[in-house]
Amino acid sequence: MDRYDVVVIGGSAAGLTAAITARRHYSDKRILLIRKEEKVPIPCGIPYIFGTVESPEKNLIPDAVLDKNRIELMVAEVTEIDRDEKGIRTSEGDVGYDRLVIATGSLPAKPPVPGFDKEGVYAVVKDVEFLSSLKKKVGEAKRIVVIGGGFIGIEFADEINKIGGKEITIIEMLPHCLALAYDDEFCELMETKLKERGIRIRTKTRVKEVAGADRVEKVVCDDGGEIPADMVILGIGAVANVELARKAGLDIGPSGSIVVDRTMMTADPNVFACGDCAEKISFFGGGWSPLKLASIATLEARIAGANLYGLNRESPGTVGVWSTAVGELALGTAGLTEDLARKRRYNTVSATVEGPNRHPGCMPDASNLKLKLVFERNSGVLLGGQVAGDRTAGEVINAVSACVQSRMTAEQIAMFQLGTHPALTASPVSYALVNAAEIAISRLGSTDAG
Amino acid sequence: MDRYDVVVIGGSAAGLTAAITARRHYSDKRILLIRKEEKVPIPCGIPYIFGTVESPEKNLIPDAVLDKNRIELMVAEVTEIDRDEKGIRTSEGDVGYDRLVIATGSLPAKPPVPGFDKEGVYAVVKDVEFLSSLKKKVGEAKRIVVIGGGFIGIEFADEINKIGGKEITIIEMLPHCLALAYDDEFCELMETKLKERGIRIRTKTRVKEVAGADRVEKVVCDDGGEIPADMVILGIGAVANVELARKAGLDIGPSGSIVVDRTMMTADPNVFACGDCAEKISFFGGGWSPLKLASIATLEARIAGANLYGLNRESPGTVGVWSTAVGELALGTAGLTEDLARKRRYNTVSATVEGPNRHPGCMPDASNLKLKLVFERNSGVLLGGQVAGDRTAGEVINAVSACVQSRMTAEQIAMFQLGTHPALTASPVSYALVNAAEIAISRLGSTDAG
Repeated sequence: MDRYDVVVIGGSAAGLTAAITARRHYSDKRILLIRKEEKVPIPCGIPYIFGTVESPEKNLIPDAVLDKNRIELMVAEVTEIDRDEKGIRTSEGDVGYDRLVIATGSLPAKPPVPGFDKEGVYAVVKDVEFLSSLKKKVGEAKRIVVIGGGFIGIEFADEINKIGGKEITIIEMLPHCLALAYDDEFCELMETKLKERGIRIRTKTRVKEVAGADRVEKVVCDDGGEIPADMVILGIGAVANVELARKAGLDIGPSGSIVVDRTMMTADPNVFACGDCAEKISFFGGGWSPLKLASIATLEARIAGANLYGLNRESPGTVGVWSTAVGELALGTAGLTEDLARKRRYNTVSATVEGPNRHPGCMPDASNLKLKLVFERNSGVLLGGQVAGDRTAGEVINAVSACVQSRMTAEQIAMFQLGTHPALTASPVSYALVNAAEIAISRLGSTDAG
Repeated sequence: MDRYDVVVIGGSAAGLTAAITARRHYSDKRILLIRKEEKVPIPCGIPYIFGTVESPEKNLIPDAVLDKNRIELMVAEVTEIDRDEKGIRTSEGDVGYDRLVIATGSLPAKPPVPGFDKEGVYAVVKDVEFLSSLKKKVGEAKRIVVIGGGFIGIEFADEINKIGGKEITIIEMLPHCLALAYDDEFCELMETKLKERGIRIRTKTRVKEVAGADRVEKVVCDDGGEIPADMVILGIGAVANVELARKAGLDIGPSGSIVVDRTMMTADPNVFACGDCAEKISFFGGGWSPLKLASIATLEARIAGANLYGLNRESPGTVGVWSTAVGELALGTAGLTEDLARKRRYNTVSATVEGPNRHPGCMPDASNLKLKLVFERNSGVLLGGQVAGDRTAGEVINAVSACVQSRMTAEQIAMFQLGTHPALTASPVSYALVNAAEIAISRLGSTDAG
């Protein structure tokens, strides 16, 4: 049996990053990455193969990075982990490990709704062949229903809509699309944008059944409404892929994922887990977090990869930072929304600032930027932020994220030292991040001692 | 004599922000802003009135914000501050103050080089009438020499170049344009871009004389070179406008600016100063800092305005964050360059990462993003960062700035929780900020304990 120092199971965002990080931190170790896919799609890029990007073949994680980091690759199905003998059984033979990283990711959720097993109903699997076939079928369909108005759902809907000549409907059970990540006023901006582009949206609606004789013909909602459909795409979340870990006797936690501590170590100190398959805790309060994002996966992978031969990193918990875009509208969120913060019993103060993202406002490409910051009232600590704007919003939210991660207070953010430029940002007088903090301060309580 | 609680002298970035901040923090005070200009140009927008923006009239700080914040406006020339009687003499009559903020800004530097007083040589004054007249003269000139290759110089040169039909030359005495804010490899990117656009650049060149009979005819360099010119624009920095303060007996510091402490208070506890007219200390080491930027001015104004009736803010010192753009190339810098850090005797470790700013790299609008981070070797603390990319670079540098301001270490940045999206940012696997930190860590010393 060929033995490696480090074996990583899984070749997507978490597995790849864990292997690269292990290489960076342990230059002399022999590292093997095992994955079942010949080619690995970039997970977040999947919606874009239907419209913006030509084909699944153009949305691959490049393997060159493996060679560059001296990471060996085995394309095989892992069938068993034997922790006693520190060995792995695969479809291509057995290998041994000294340290193991499980990064088996997630599978699309497919709840037991009547008709979800009918032909024409698709959950999105991260597999190039499946995606090529799905793309062909999407091309042929005319009436497509997307179930789930989270970011996967809206991005799929918008990309498919770009093909043209289709009737697309999003069904969301919550009051708004994106409602778990944005407060109402931001969700509404996105819903308006989607509707402008011809996409129909039905919120506060549950799917009762997907009906049809041989294959899907319509979606039946709990309010009695029926939507004719040639095709249904499920965008209702993901469940951790933990069968291997479970069979190997590793604990499975409250969200159905592999239990790890803040170092990403399982109860077996030779075995780490990271990414969608690993249990997560929240940055806010430390309770478990249901979020699954590629950016969280890579953070956890950087922790796991660095800790394999001696602990030196601990996760501060998942902040939850991500962005999405439809046409020229981009949204970003970091941390807790005001709605979620209140549901968790935080006493919040928020402030929203809106204005042009260039100065003067007549500069070319200027558009509106809207930023909301949510603070904890007693400490003034930033709990989260949301932004809506043009394509710069994706980086604006990363500046907000830095403030959340540093647990900056409104006072500190009011004194944020920012770079501004007429062609790139808002004016320093009205820069949204700083001004929202100033407004929040006035709501936290006056500093007036005069 | 009409008495106010708060009087602010100066209506540009610092004065306006100080007045707004005073209003936010002291809702019941009577606030007066005195400025000499009928209309106030947005300072950073001035280069853009020559090309991108139609006229100086389109680059004004809007006065509506004064009304909105119940700030009274007096357009007058202040001739004297009498600190004993807490009064101000102006061209429109006298007013009294309880607290005074001096925000008189800066004037363009005009060193005593022979010929700088000739007709056709212009230092850029922040005045709408002057700018309108300058714009007309620029339109008529054919051969224009810009002296000074800092950001003002290159932005002027590029905007004037957009008019077409002109020969434009930048003269810079340092080895590179932008050399005080960027390391060589970033300066070279910008120089290449400027040259591609037809602008000539002469670095390592000092101006010996501006020659001509009645008016400028040529610029004579110290290397004997001569550049024919109809017009010369000086972009060689600014000096603090402190005559009023000096006459009022306030101390003037090593950079020729009004001495203030970290609360922006002068030696007179009723008088504060902020912006280009105020002395600055560096975030790094606490020595004096020569930087003058609108974004620094607004930070200081937020400190001064909040502290007028009781201190509650202290400046951590000037980080120095700003960005510039020419065509599709934007550069951003925060904190110390590696060159400057070494000159200040920091023992540095740096890392540079380059790659597409979308994922996959074939997404529309994808372009290259280059990021360099500079760390202090012993502590691993981030001293500065530089970025080159498309228009998102202006916000990328603000995320870097947040890390600098929080004195984050390479370890902390390696665990930065970032938001990524195919249409907006690089991939989470290769996000530059995090990867540059990881590479720096491997150079700081291995964590390998295996």
